[in-house]
Formats: sequence, structure tokens, C-alpha cells
Amino acid sequence: MGNKEKEFVQEITNIDEDFAQWYTDIVIKADLADYTDVKGFVAIKPYGYAIWENIQNYEDKKFKEHGVKNISMPVLIPESLLNMEKDHVEGFAPEVAWVTIGGEEELEERLCVRPTSETIFSKMYSKWLSSWRELPFLYNQWCSVLRWEKETRPFLRSREFLWQEGHTIHSTEKEAEEFTLAMLDVYADTIENLLAIPVLKGRKTVKEQFAGAKATYTVETLMHDGRALQAGTSHYFGQNFSKAFDIKFQNKEGKEEFAYQTSWGTTTRLIGAVIMAHGDNRGLKLPPRVAPIQAVIVPVALHKDGVKEKAEELYNNLKKKFRMELDVREQYSPGFKFNDWEMRGVPVRIEIGPRDIEEGVVVLVRRDTLEKETVKIEKIEDRLNELMEEIQNNMYNACLKNMEEKTSVAYSLEEMQKILDDNQGFVKTMWCGSQECEDKVKEVTGAPSRCMPFEQEHLADTCAICGKKAEKMIVWGRQY
Amino acid sequence: MGNKEKEFVQEITNIDEDFAQWYTDIVIKADLADYTDVKGFVAIKPYGYAIWENIQNYEDKKFKEHGVKNISMPVLIPESLLNMEKDHVEGFAPEVAWVTIGGEEELEERLCVRPTSETIFSKMYSKWLSSWRELPFLYNQWCSVLRWEKETRPFLRSREFLWQEGHTIHSTEKEAEEFTLAMLDVYADTIENLLAIPVLKGRKTVKEQFAGAKATYTVETLMHDGRALQAGTSHYFGQNFSKAFDIKFQNKEGKEEFAYQTSWGTTTRLIGAVIMAHGDNRGLKLPPRVAPIQAVIVPVALHKDGVKEKAEELYNNLKKKFRMELDVREQYSPGFKFNDWEMRGVPVRIEIGPRDIEEGVVVLVRRDTLEKETVKIEKIEDRLNELMEEIQNNMYNACLKNMEEKTSVAYSLEEMQKILDDNQGFVKTMWCGSQECEDKVKEVTGAPSRCMPFEQEHLADTCAICGKKAEKMIVWGRQY
Repeated sequence: MGNKEKEFVQEITNIDEDFAQWYTDIVIKADLADYTDVKGFVAIKPYGYAIWENIQNYEDKKFKEHGVKNISMPVLIPESLLNMEKDHVEGFAPEVAWVTIGGEEELEERLCVRPTSETIFSKMYSKWLSSWRELPFLYNQWCSVLRWEKETRPFLRSREFLWQEGHTIHSTEKEAEEFTLAMLDVYADTIENLLAIPVLKGRKTVKEQFAGAKATYTVETLMHDGRALQAGTSHYFGQNFSKAFDIKFQNKEGKEEFAYQTSWGTTTRLIGAVIMAHGDNRGLKLPPRVAPIQAVIVPVALHKDGVKEKAEELYNNLKKKFRMELDVREQYSPGFKFNDWEMRGVPVRIEIGPRDIEEGVVVLVRRDTLEKETVKIEKIEDRLNELMEEIQNNMYNACLKNMEEKTSVAYSLEEMQKILDDNQGFVKTMWCGSQECEDKVKEVTGAPSRCMPFEQEHLADTCAICGKKAEKMIVWGRQY
Repeated sequence: MGNKEKEFVQEITNIDEDFAQWYTDIVIKADLADYTDVKGFVAIKPYGYAIWENIQNYEDKKFKEHGVKNISMPVLIPESLLNMEKDHVEGFAPEVAWVTIGGEEELEERLCVRPTSETIFSKMYSKWLSSWRELPFLYNQWCSVLRWEKETRPFLRSREFLWQEGHTIHSTEKEAEEFTLAMLDVYADTIENLLAIPVLKGRKTVKEQFAGAKATYTVETLMHDGRALQAGTSHYFGQNFSKAFDIKFQNKEGKEEFAYQTSWGTTTRLIGAVIMAHGDNRGLKLPPRVAPIQAVIVPVALHKDGVKEKAEELYNNLKKKFRMELDVREQYSPGFKFNDWEMRGVPVRIEIGPRDIEEGVVVLVRRDTLEKETVKIEKIEDRLNELMEEIQNNMYNACLKNMEEKTSVAYSLEEMQKILDDNQGFVKTMWCGSQECEDKVKEVTGAPSRCMPFEQEHLADTCAICGKKAEKMIVWGRQY
């Protein structure tokens, strides 16, 4: 390895020494995003945005299979509309941005840049709905929202983020609750099957639920360092908003009834999850299904007779089946390119040089295990197909192993604290159901509750915090 | 036709009596969009948004074939950044919305909600660019922008609209100019081949060009009533922004050079163009390639034995090949449904009743000509394929005929005014090239210049307005 390459690798902070700095290094050096002149706002660069497009395509297709349709609501919401649901405005008012001047004139009523759109959807739903025959309304929008966060980090917490927000209304409680959970399943599917990250599914405590919701369901994930990341949430509102916004319909019996409502969202934070769940000291590591580039061809001895031509031929064949890149940059050595593409997390590297061409083979190098293999050129497409599946599954399993190893059971507050200090991770305990105990855990250990998992276990009869009768098994964990 | 149906059709204003009101009726009654509580902001409903998605998919694929990549830039732009290019800020400052408060605190510097993003792209490009080897940057974003218009109309002119804005930088003037025109060709392709609307391609006069541009190219279209609609523009900036924002690179000779820049955009206004170019007294008329629903099955005598089942079978087969809808709403008569789907512009209606089933046929009704034909059920897929092409082409040709009939030549200001008053349309004249004459035409006839067409004709030696030596053939027309 030449000096230049060494230096190149050393530019990334060691993942076990300073995970936070490692994360920022990857975001910047793998060209996923960059800081801008607007504090707390990032620019998502082509490589990062292409990951988002793959997530969008996957989720959008699943939503549509459930009958969801996309729409577009105004980016600005009048203050009076934001104020209509009491819990909701309490949750969001402190962190919104206000437009006060439009077209050189002071506005009569200030307008906030949407932090989320329950209020405007509810207002329009109340206008659009009249009979049970029209229900359900299953609408979604892909857009950006603003929340004036104090501390920001690219993808994880920024003042602007991209997301999808689904908002539905139904004629019965049952249908609405089922839809809330169906959308949670879409999220679990996306995160597990596309992003190769296992999830813990469950219900949020009242303290942690969305402002204005009756129930919030969540998919929780665990990052490389053992910290939790809430990766998607789906909310059931009951009639909270429909009463505040007068969303009524005539039911089958001819009586007026308030609609039953849901909302659900996933954000560009999922890109942060991919970085932190899979990355290592060589950089980003992308699961093949979501990778913008699935395989990169790096010719060796580019200037030798026929190498460039053969590489181009290979590229032109493979790009019909895979998302490919051909690296013929003249100013860099093959060694530099190897490191560069590893850092960018491309699942497979294809090396081809004069000798390989003579022998009719190429060398494939997996990003996940760094294993090399020599493959006959006529077998390459088949082998790449297999490899993509192998890598996808291997990455999921590695992530699952990490989650299992970092999931512990605790029977007291002291035990919880020790586990979290030593190992982070998910900590399961029994819980009495009181917010007092929940507050205490947060105060002492710094870990909020993650969720009450759908798959409940009976660990003990009593609450690990207060010793009173236990109601539920709950999972705790420090978070991003 | 029962009373209910009659009433239904009468709800739409006559297209030749009040085109503006007809347009608004279609927008609302065909469920394309609706007004909201935020003045000048609309909600785009599922049916309207699905048209936009089809436009997005078509254009996005074409952009990517040209090497364009999508990214995401901040929605807010600091005032100091907006101010950096003199002509640009003059053009946009009067119509922006300002965020002055974030997270309950007055901001030190106010931030505008982007009216367009040249400034923020330029700022980031100056940060990202160093060598000619990295060029070109070919980036695009799909987002919404705000312009505080006084008079608004859904899709045509609203305070918020959805669009794509492409921003590229290049190492040579030639490459940048060629790219500007290549993107104009993508727009022409989209509008002609997807939306079935012929375009007039040309260059805008200096007066009409984009704030800060060196040249603006345009695709101009003509609506049913003979008014023009600017459907897409592509701008060449030369080094205007790159000098203001210090976008420099080291060229092949090792010298510093300012980059050559372009930007180009199309908006949800294209939905307005589709409505106004094709619609008639029965409502919306959608070209099959962009129609969210390409064919709708309306069973007749729904409750007769086997009708619903046969309709469902047909629907399930056809939906693999076409974007289909099956209308089994029990509360409406077939006659009501026929009118309803005609009003929504669905290209083909498929009628199927007990007698058709007995005979093994269905009835197909074209929306463009209203012609009916009986087709054997086993031939339906083939016939639908043909019909979609026939309708698409017929709609394009009808629109072309309208444009040709409404394109005139004039040799004096008086003649121009008479033509425009009688017939609207495009009026071709020779022009000396002075803004004085251009201002005069606008003042007298109310028609701004549309463009100097790429396909020039020599109509006369002298300017139709001042009689001095003519420089160019130019086209005028009153506009939306």
C-alpha cells in the first residue's frame, strides 16, 4: 500500500474509538451529504440521495399495494390550524419555523413551515368527507418537514428532513387500528429486507407516544455501538383529530360519526441507520438491495493493451442486470480505488487485469467479508446474482447477531445501569406501567423506554424499578 | 338521460362561454386539486398527483439517461446568499416568503423559502468543485418552491408549486450550451410524446429571460382557447453565477477558470397544460400515456347474475397490462358513471352487460371521439393496445391542428391586435430586436413575446412594429 492509500484510510476515525466522529467522517467522505450555509440543514449528495430513492421506490410500491395514493399538501400551515388539537400543538409549537413576511408584506397570520401535516390533512379531510361509502381515505405524501432542533447531525436529526407521511381515515376503529399495524409491517419489511437491519416491533409508552396520538407503534433498531435508533413509527389517533377538526361522515345507519384516523412516517434517518448498523473501519457497507452501485469494475494496468476495452465490454453487459460503475479514472492507482470503493460501501468489487483477461477470469471481492474469488468471465452474471443474495443475508445475520448479543435482561435499576454502561444495547425488564418508574430509568441510566414489544415474555412478577406488580415487559435503551 | 345525469353535466361551465370558469370547474370536479385554508396554496388530490407522478417518471428517466443525478438542497436560503447575484435577487426578492422565527427565537438572519435554488446550488458547487476532472456536475431536485403571487390559479400560478430544477456546471461554454438545449429537448419530448401537446421551441428575448441568465430557451404551447402557455424553460448562465459565487476549477492547462452553468425546470403547470389543451364540454380529456386510469370498466345491470363476476374477471386480466379502474359503485346508475368518467377524462370506457356476456363481447367507448365499437372479449387486450396509440396520436393531431389554425403572420401592429382580438393564438412577425418595440406590442395588444423560434422564416425585411431593419422572426401571444 502506497503512502497515498494509507493516508486515505487513516482519514476515517476508528469506529471503536469515536463512533460519533466515525459517523460524520463516513457521511462526508463517502459523499452522502454535506453541511450547508444554513445552520442545521444539509445537502444530500447524489450518492446519499440514490439510497433514499431506492428506499422510496420500495416503500412506495408497498404502500400502493395497500391502496395508498400520493397527494401533495401545502408546505405552510396557518397558526390557527396548528392550534386546533391541544396535545399536538404543545408537542410541536416549540420547534417550528414561522413565515411572517410574504411578498414584502407582513402577514396577517403567521404560517409555520410544516413540522408534520396532521392538521392540514385533517382540515381537508373534514372538507372532503361526507359518506361512509367514500372511506377509507388512504393518502401519503413524500416531502420535507422542518423541526428547529438545537443539536443536529446529518440524517439523524436535522432541522429539515425528507420523509413520507401517510394519513388515513376509516369508518371503524378496527379497520383503522389494523391499518396502523399494516403500515408498521411495511416499515419492518423495508428495514429488514431492503436495509438488512432486524427490528424490534412494539408499542410506545404513553410518555413516548406522538403528540395527539392514542397509540404509537414503533420499529426499533440497534446500531453497531449498541445504541438504539427509532426507525419508523405508526400512530393510531382514534377520534382525537377528527373531533378537533370535525371530520364526520354519515355511517351505514345514516348517523353522523367521527372518522378513525392514523398517521405513519419514515425519514431519511433510515440512511443514518444503514450507515451505523453496517459500517466498519473501512467505511460504509451497503446491502446490495439498497446500494446505488451494486458492483464496481476496477481495471488493473488500465493502459495495457485491451484492458480498458474488456472492462468496458464487461460493464456494458453487466449494467443491464446490476447497478454498475466502471472506474477508469486515470489519476488514481488501483490500490487507491480499492480503498475508495470499499469506503463507499459498494457490495462487490470486480478486478480485471491483463493476466485475468488472458485466462478468461475476473476477481470478485466482497465488501462484507473482504473475501476474494476468481470467476470465469462467462459465469460472472450468475455468480454476481448469488453473491448479492449471500451478502444481503450475511449482513442481515451479522446485524441480528449484534442485536441478540446486545439484548439483555435486568431485574433491577442497578443492573440496568451496569448493562447500559458496559454494553449499551436493549435491556428488557418487567414494568409496572407507571410513568414515575419510566422517568426514573431515564434519569438514572439515560435510557428512555424503546417499546413494549409485541412478543411479550414473562421475566418476573414484579416491576424491576419499583417492585410493584408488573404489567408488561418493556425494552429500554439509549438512543440516537 | 335521467335528471340526475343532466344536472351533472350542466355543472361544468361551457368551455366556449367562460374558459376560465370551465378550467376551475374541471380542476375541482375532476378531483385534481382543491383550495386550502392557506391563501394561494392548493392541495393536489390523488387523481391530479398521479398525473404528476407519470410526468415525473417519464422525465426522471430521460434526465438519468443524460447522466443527471438527483440531490436534495435546503428549503431555506439565507438572505445574504439570495443577494449575491444582482439580477437574480432583483427578479426574485419581491416575491419570496421569509422565515424570521425558528424554535421560538427571532433569527439573526432571515431565511427565505426557496423561490428557486440557483444560489444554494452555486454556493455548494463552489465548495465541491476543484478540478476539471470532476466536471460536469449534473444535478437535479424534485421539490416545491414558493413565489408570493398576487393572483393565483390552481396548477397555473400558485404560491407553492411542485417542480424539478436541474442545475449543472461544465468546463466549457460549448458543453454547457449543448446541455441547456438537450434539456429543452427532454421537455419537448415529454410535452409532445407524453402529454400529446405540440410545442414551439425557441429562445426568449432578453426582456423575458430568467433573472440572471445569459440565454433562456423555452417550449411554448397553445391552449384550446388560443392563449399561450410557457411549458418549460432551460437557461444558460455562462459564468454569471460562477463569478458571483466563486465556482472555480483548475482546467486541463492547470489554470483557474470559472465554470459554465445551466438550470432548467418544469412544474405542475404541465397538469394545467393538459387540462387546457385537450379538455372539452364533457370535461377533462387525458392522453393515454399520462392518464392515471387508462380504461374504466362500467358494468351495466350490475345486479344481474354473473355481471359483476365477469367484470371483475376482465378487470383482473386487464390490470396486468393497463392502468384500470372497475366501477361497481352501487349508488350510481350506469348513465351517471358514463358521464362521471368522461368528465374525469379516462381515455377508454368498457361497458359490459348481460347481453354482451351472452354474446362474448364488450363495448369500448373512446373519450376523444366518443365513438363506440363492439369487440370480442378475447380480442380486447389487442384492441386496447391499438386504441391507446390511436387516441394518443389523435389527441396530438387535434392539438396540432388547433395550433396551426391559430398561428398567423402579421406585418403591422394593427394587424397583430386584430388577430389577437379575433382569434388569440401565436402571431409571427419580423422584429428589429429592440425592447422598445417589444414593450409597445405588450402595451398595445397585451401579448408578450413568446420566443424567437429556432425555425426561423423570412417574412419580410422590416420590423412589423417600427419598420426598421428586421433581425429576427419572433412569435407573440397572450398568455396564462
